[in-house]
Amino acid sequence: MTRKIIIDTDPGIDDAMAIFFALRSPELDVIGLTTIFGNVHTTLATTNALRLLEIANRSDIPVIKGADNPIAAEYEGPVPFVHGNDGQGNLDLPPPTSKALDTTAAEWIIEQIMTHPGKVTLVPIGPLTNIALALRLEPRIAENVQEVVLMGGNAVVPGNATPAAEANIHNDPEAADLVFGANWRVTMIGLDVTHRVNMTRADIARYAEVGSAMTNHVMRMLPVYQGYFEKAYGSDGIYVHDSSAVAYVIDPTLFRTESWSIRVETMGISRGKTWPSLGEVVLPPWQNRPRVNVAVDVDSPRLVALEHARMIE
Amino acid sequence: MTRKIIIDTDPGIDDAMAIFFALRSPELDVIGLTTIFGNVHTTLATTNALRLLEIANRSDIPVIKGADNPIAAEYEGPVPFVHGNDGQGNLDLPPPTSKALDTTAAEWIIEQIMTHPGKVTLVPIGPLTNIALALRLEPRIAENVQEVVLMGGNAVVPGNATPAAEANIHNDPEAADLVFGANWRVTMIGLDVTHRVNMTRADIARYAEVGSAMTNHVMRMLPVYQGYFEKAYGSDGIYVHDSSAVAYVIDPTLFRTESWSIRVETMGISRGKTWPSLGEVVLPPWQNRPRVNVAVDVDSPRLVALEHARMIE
Repeated sequence: MTRKIIIDTDPGIDDAMAIFFALRSPELDVIGLTTIFGNVHTTLATTNALRLLEIANRSDIPVIKGADNPIAAEYEGPVPFVHGNDGQGNLDLPPPTSKALDTTAAEWIIEQIMTHPGKVTLVPIGPLTNIALALRLEPRIAENVQEVVLMGGNAVVPGNATPAAEANIHNDPEAADLVFGANWRVTMIGLDVTHRVNMTRADIARYAEVGSAMTNHVMRMLPVYQGYFEKAYGSDGIYVHDSSAVAYVIDPTLFRTESWSIRVETMGISRGKTWPSLGEVVLPPWQNRPRVNVAVDVDSPRLVALEHARMIE
Repeated sequence: MTRKIIIDTDPGIDDAMAIFFALRSPELDVIGLTTIFGNVHTTLATTNALRLLEIANRSDIPVIKGADNPIAAEYEGPVPFVHGNDGQGNLDLPPPTSKALDTTAAEWIIEQIMTHPGKVTLVPIGPLTNIALALRLEPRIAENVQEVVLMGGNAVVPGNATPAAEANIHNDPEAADLVFGANWRVTMIGLDVTHRVNMTRADIARYAEVGSAMTNHVMRMLPVYQGYFEKAYGSDGIYVHDSSAVAYVIDPTLFRTESWSIRVETMGISRGKTWPSLGEVVLPPWQNRPRVNVAVDVDSPRLVALEHARMIE
């Protein structure tokens, strides 16, 4: 059965790959892209979402612009050293001919979930601001969503934005704490697994052989991203962050998960750290919090093979 | 060559074992025990330090009482569920006949380091309040100490006092941040290694065969501590926290270490977390901080065997 998903995204090079992966997967019906700041400002994220759907020849899918700033702070700005100045590997793409819908991401997310109760899955692969705003505007989305599968956080491994925190959660910790605290099914696909999913240079080279509009775009934008991983981690290739969340929706058996309560630190040098309550003793900050489905291990070769297979089918 | 060490301690069941281990090691000259709150209040820690030296027939070694509260907070109280109401496994020991010196731990530590420049090693196995006070009273101890080998912190593993923090650091994060920020050689023996050093019930049973005053005391007080580890971690036996710091002073080849800058979180639910700067990019909180020698792996069987050998020699 095809599942309706909304991808909330800040494209971003790996966002683009995750969007293409979802579009090419028959299990998924991408009903919309909602946009958020993170890798780039929300305005550019919106432009890029429109461009990516044009490249994929899927401008029938709506794009809806989200919040420009975190729910309780100011956006700290883009990361051109990871994704390029344009968020797409410095490709200087032409402006999109299509336009975003005339509503906000939070309102549109609510409308979709309440119109299709139990049938919509949220796949946020950027900061969680739009999702938290939607929860605050209409709390009933919690019992009407199918599930939430997000890329973000780090339960028992170091961060990437800071020693403490992963970039998506670090960009809006207050929103993330609301999302992990709501009574809905949330799966956290964080650095605990994405830093184990390595798409090597050899894996990437195989995309060149496909020759589709989507894979051609991937091949053009990847050098900037690859360069960042080589410099920062000495990696051969790239870590697969956002596509891992899409992979979970398609095939959760790729992952091993634990059921942990998660609190998000909003203070100090630990701001944005996702803390699981691991032991026997549950301290007050974690008491009465719902459990989150936290991915802790992954079959990396099978995930990389799945994404590749979808792009060549 | 025998090394002069000062053990700063909050006895504490594993503190008692570490003190006995040090007293039985010919490489070490224990020149004093300074006391601190943590496992128990400082007053009881002082009483226990005196009692332990009496059991060991080493009342020639001075005991000096330390601070009653953290440098910038209030002591949160003892942990009777770990160490018993008396900090020594509920043994109702008789009062000591010996007395503490009539000075403070911080002043005495300064006096010893400045009298024996380059010859005194500090081995703090409780919260770092006395050490931080000494640094503030006389910063020149930094260049005159031989080294600091402390039990505390958790670099890349979860905490034990909270999901974020290890108990000693959690008891005085402000003091710990001063100690990790001073220009001296600090080795951090934290949960990264001590949660890998397991003294099994079979290992413990071998202490019963020794029959000395010290091992008899160990055997009497251990059931409470063992009971805690069984309940909290499902462990067979106990983790070796404080003795691991003593073991490092005797034989650093038991450990593998990394050289990382450490900042201590003082805020939020992460209070007391020791954050290493791991990546290429060094963010402002970690800039211009000295490197700490952080233990990340340990030869557990060899460490357990060393401690046992010293108690039976």
